[in-house]
Amino acid sequence: MALIVQKFGGTSVGNPERIKNVARKVIQEKLAGNQVVVVVSAMSGQTDQLIGLCKQMSDNPSKREMDMMVSTGEQVTIALLAIGLIDLGHDAISYNGWQVGIRTTDEYSKAKILDIDTKRIRESLDEGKVVVVAGFQGIDHKGNITTLGRGGSDTTAVAVAAALRADRCDIYTDVDGVYTADPRVVPDAKRLDKISHDEMLELASMGSKVLHDRSVIFAMKYNVPLRVVSSFDDGPGTLIVKESSEMEDVLISGIAKKDNEVRVNIAGIPDKPGVASSIFKKLADANINVNMIIQSVGFEGESQISFTVINTDLDEAKKVMETLQAELGAKNVSYDADISIVSVVGVGMKVYSGVAAAVFDELAKNSINIEMISTSEIKISVVIRKNLAEKTVQALHKRFFLNA
Amino acid sequence: MALIVQKFGGTSVGNPERIKNVARKVIQEKLAGNQVVVVVSAMSGQTDQLIGLCKQMSDNPSKREMDMMVSTGEQVTIALLAIGLIDLGHDAISYNGWQVGIRTTDEYSKAKILDIDTKRIRESLDEGKVVVVAGFQGIDHKGNITTLGRGGSDTTAVAVAAALRADRCDIYTDVDGVYTADPRVVPDAKRLDKISHDEMLELASMGSKVLHDRSVIFAMKYNVPLRVVSSFDDGPGTLIVKESSEMEDVLISGIAKKDNEVRVNIAGIPDKPGVASSIFKKLADANINVNMIIQSVGFEGESQISFTVINTDLDEAKKVMETLQAELGAKNVSYDADISIVSVVGVGMKVYSGVAAAVFDELAKNSINIEMISTSEIKISVVIRKNLAEKTVQALHKRFFLNA
Repeated sequence: MALIVQKFGGTSVGNPERIKNVARKVIQEKLAGNQVVVVVSAMSGQTDQLIGLCKQMSDNPSKREMDMMVSTGEQVTIALLAIGLIDLGHDAISYNGWQVGIRTTDEYSKAKILDIDTKRIRESLDEGKVVVVAGFQGIDHKGNITTLGRGGSDTTAVAVAAALRADRCDIYTDVDGVYTADPRVVPDAKRLDKISHDEMLELASMGSKVLHDRSVIFAMKYNVPLRVVSSFDDGPGTLIVKESSEMEDVLISGIAKKDNEVRVNIAGIPDKPGVASSIFKKLADANINVNMIIQSVGFEGESQISFTVINTDLDEAKKVMETLQAELGAKNVSYDADISIVSVVGVGMKVYSGVAAAVFDELAKNSINIEMISTSEIKISVVIRKNLAEKTVQALHKRFFLNA
Repeated sequence: MALIVQKFGGTSVGNPERIKNVARKVIQEKLAGNQVVVVVSAMSGQTDQLIGLCKQMSDNPSKREMDMMVSTGEQVTIALLAIGLIDLGHDAISYNGWQVGIRTTDEYSKAKILDIDTKRIRESLDEGKVVVVAGFQGIDHKGNITTLGRGGSDTTAVAVAAALRADRCDIYTDVDGVYTADPRVVPDAKRLDKISHDEMLELASMGSKVLHDRSVIFAMKYNVPLRVVSSFDDGPGTLIVKESSEMEDVLISGIAKKDNEVRVNIAGIPDKPGVASSIFKKLADANINVNMIIQSVGFEGESQISFTVINTDLDEAKKVMETLQAELGAKNVSYDADISIVSVVGVGMKVYSGVAAAVFDELAKNSINIEMISTSEIKISVVIRKNLAEKTVQALHKRFFLNA
């Protein structure tokens, strides 16, 4: 008997009819002879509606109370799904995060899971029940309700799967797997049967909205076999697994783009040690995540640093940069929101050289100007003008997938 | 510094604007130098909406899961009220039932409070915070969420007040106190400044919807000074207090009617010991509450028993009565829903005789036929035709209040 954790997102549980559909998917897995734990999100739109009510009470609502509020969204879904399962003749029981010991840090609205006490889930599974767990939420050491932030239900599912040593964690979404590129941009993009955690992570952090990157990190850390599969049909989906040597035979797994980053450029900085460190420490202290970083070679005693931040962090970043400009005596700070980042991802890069050259060659052929370049062991990212992003993805997809 | 528990019902917290109004009432009490605990219900309409969703999933939804579902209603209100209080500059913290140890029995949808661990509430009060507690809900010994049934928020408020040994428990409602009769029936009904627990209990159980009877029983048991007061203006309301000798100077405190009872009549029962006992034991086993009971004197070896049950229990009662009719060899069982019960309540009856005679005299003068009579130490109830109920209340009110 295998133990399967299933996760259904907001769209899949958007109304009672869809929740009944989810119940049937759950029962299918149960009837196949498996123990099943289901993690669900709030019904789509619900969380925004709850946040809207909070904003009617205050322009700056308490984060603890916001978490108290929005956590009701998942509580509604778990109850409805358990009712649906029982109605279809399968014993089920729903639990909030606090009821199954999903202990988190006390950072309201973006708490991190510390550990999960699986005792109660195991007991209910042993009683033959389907266990329905609220995603996205937990409890801190003082007994306050916390939430994990957007995409947190994926993380809950993977964390529960890791804690239970589940045989598989299936993430049900509105797409039927991970694609070589966004099918809306590249109509002939192909579904991948298998992808490594590292590759998925690069794609997830690059804006592929299939999985939240925190959930992939969790899956990688605890070696949870993860599967992305459709809520609406019965395809095989995409398995996200530990990297294996045969994966390196495939040069590239996917091409992703990210449109919500802003480039920050600080120029005319005195070229001395410790400058970069002081910039990025201050940004980290303000909880601002920095993506690409490039420092140009110093010239005439001055240097220049460029990096990208997510646009929702821009206001905060501007405050930090103002202070820094004065402190460092930099000549100029500028911001450019009109950019996109396009990345080519694949573990094959570790073995085969020439991927970077092929990327640059393809873009040159298409007269696309590269403004920043950043590479990792399995990824090459370029910053380009935003209006060229789709063209870039299409050109690179053609180069690596159709010509391959 | 006094400790005040305030309770606001669904209408008072019906939307963000009204919750802000509640916040102002709370702050008023806080600024008067008191420690304040606020108990709130779900926003009006919310509970029915949540139950409606459950019914869309199943005709017979699991009661445990229903409690999981509907308890989100209060969770939303406590968060909104805490956000509103903080926004107005007063530190506040919200708690669900399980977070402040409101331990109950495990009878889902009608759980009873067993005890309350006040540690966490006290800590927050000592930190100068207003404590906002979810009414209507608790947690059983296994950690499941339970609800107390309709009217349960009143009970939560009184139970919290009792556990904290609060100086007063104020129940805010949409009326400004307890009246000598329903002002919609008797326009010149008067607000009572003070009433005893016993009298309030008789009025509450007789359909006066100001307070739930369970909350009055709790207040009486733990001697909690209770006040019914309006959410919408600043009147003194009605104090519900321990009976004192001076109260007996007032003959009658109120006249109530109840329209939702059905009379059950079982006739032609062999007149032997144990018959009544077997009837009412079977009804109690089926969890059916019986109100008035009358057994007529046996005649020719046969007797007759009449009693009333609430109309929502009628189907269940009919099943029990069918079995009983066969077992007892009774000749006939009949049901009459076209009745009302009118009651005259007052501790003064303990001292002054003649109230019953005055009731019967007044009804005779008005040609109102009495079909059943039942009396307690402080109450006289009569069963009459439903279409005569308002006339009866008006006539008795005139007799006891205007002629007094």
